[in-house]
Amino acid sequence: MDNKKFLDFLKQNRIEPKNLSIYLEALTHKSYANEHKLTKNYQRLEFLGDACVEWVISNFIFNYKIKDNEKMRSLDEGEMTRARSNMVRSEILSYAAKDLGLTDFLMIGVGLEQDQSARMEKIYEDIFEAFIGAVAQDQGIKKVSLILEKTLIKYFREGQINYQKDYKTIFQEQAQRINKKPIMYKLVRNEGDKKEVHLVWNDLIYGIGIASTRKEAEILAAKNAILKLDDYTKKA
Amino acid sequence: MDNKKFLDFLKQNRIEPKNLSIYLEALTHKSYANEHKLTKNYQRLEFLGDACVEWVISNFIFNYKIKDNEKMRSLDEGEMTRARSNMVRSEILSYAAKDLGLTDFLMIGVGLEQDQSARMEKIYEDIFEAFIGAVAQDQGIKKVSLILEKTLIKYFREGQINYQKDYKTIFQEQAQRINKKPIMYKLVRNEGDKKEVHLVWNDLIYGIGIASTRKEAEILAAKNAILKLDDYTKKA
Repeated sequence: MDNKKFLDFLKQNRIEPKNLSIYLEALTHKSYANEHKLTKNYQRLEFLGDACVEWVISNFIFNYKIKDNEKMRSLDEGEMTRARSNMVRSEILSYAAKDLGLTDFLMIGVGLEQDQSARMEKIYEDIFEAFIGAVAQDQGIKKVSLILEKTLIKYFREGQINYQKDYKTIFQEQAQRINKKPIMYKLVRNEGDKKEVHLVWNDLIYGIGIASTRKEAEILAAKNAILKLDDYTKKA
Repeated sequence: MDNKKFLDFLKQNRIEPKNLSIYLEALTHKSYANEHKLTKNYQRLEFLGDACVEWVISNFIFNYKIKDNEKMRSLDEGEMTRARSNMVRSEILSYAAKDLGLTDFLMIGVGLEQDQSARMEKIYEDIFEAFIGAVAQDQGIKKVSLILEKTLIKYFREGQINYQKDYKTIFQEQAQRINKKPIMYKLVRNEGDKKEVHLVWNDLIYGIGIASTRKEAEILAAKNAILKLDDYTKKA
């Protein structure tokens, strides 16, 4: 690792390390530790950082307000739970490791260096958590908040991370309040990039969705079906 | 709720509330909220407190040192994981709610008041977490640490909460390093308060355990088997 470059990286993140070795530990994969006969790797710090990320994000979500019908309100339990689990998802954490530039400093065994697989994504996720653990241990939780503000919380504010229910879940919940009949998503057209899905419930086609993937077509069908169900319940 | 008594309770825990209503929210079960047409119950604070307990306990465990062969050392990842999951177990959290005296202030619907079932234990667990959430929100995390020092951390220091592997797991891990043959715990005697268990592995009786319950007898058999396996590996 280029020490000068790493100190610059810490400085950019407003970290003046009291104990530099803990940051190095956070970036040491066990394969590297084995090759270089080091006793420490990032696993203990990952344990710490995992809980730290969860806490800072939970605290942020708890205090977050959204505008709903011209009024500001907090998220309810369901929204909070979805927001948190979406914010700390593996893909988001490994993305944050890359976004922050942490991955440039990963110390990994020679055999793994060229690995481009899902295994590397898991390692990126791990070092993000381990780095947060190191910051918490060396600097305290306020500095952790700053780093999460630049990553996970920023992605959330930008709308990249959702906390709302998806349309399929919403339709299911609304429909089941009326009756428990099964909801079927029927693929009625399947032409390369054109998939058409019919949502059938209560012996009726409630929604039609056309999109390039089956998944998107199902979501559109559910979205249409929710509008139709709204009409239905207003008339009833 | 007796307001005077509750303020005394907070004072005993060195809490001068900035916002009393958040503590009341933490103690309001949804059945009570429904009966009294209140908009708030403890669920949002439980979400917050759950993550807060996990973080404070993780931080404690990360920095905890044990004496091992006359040397002080930190816990390894496996020990940390076991310590944490044992410290935040449901039974421990509901015990802590009672130990702290929180359960005296629970506000619950009339229909549930006389309930003595497992459902109440779950509610005690919930209000412990929700109360921690309220303290975190109103006072900050240092006061949370004080309360956890008086409960979960105290139980851990007193040795009531374990972080070591149990003997059955240890035997299994050691045996499987030698071969993958199945390990069987055979109950060979079953007389009221006298159960005898033989641990059979590799076509041999490796350990015998006699105790008043089958579970304890199995653990003793595993403990004996570990000693026998040590001999075996030394000879090999």
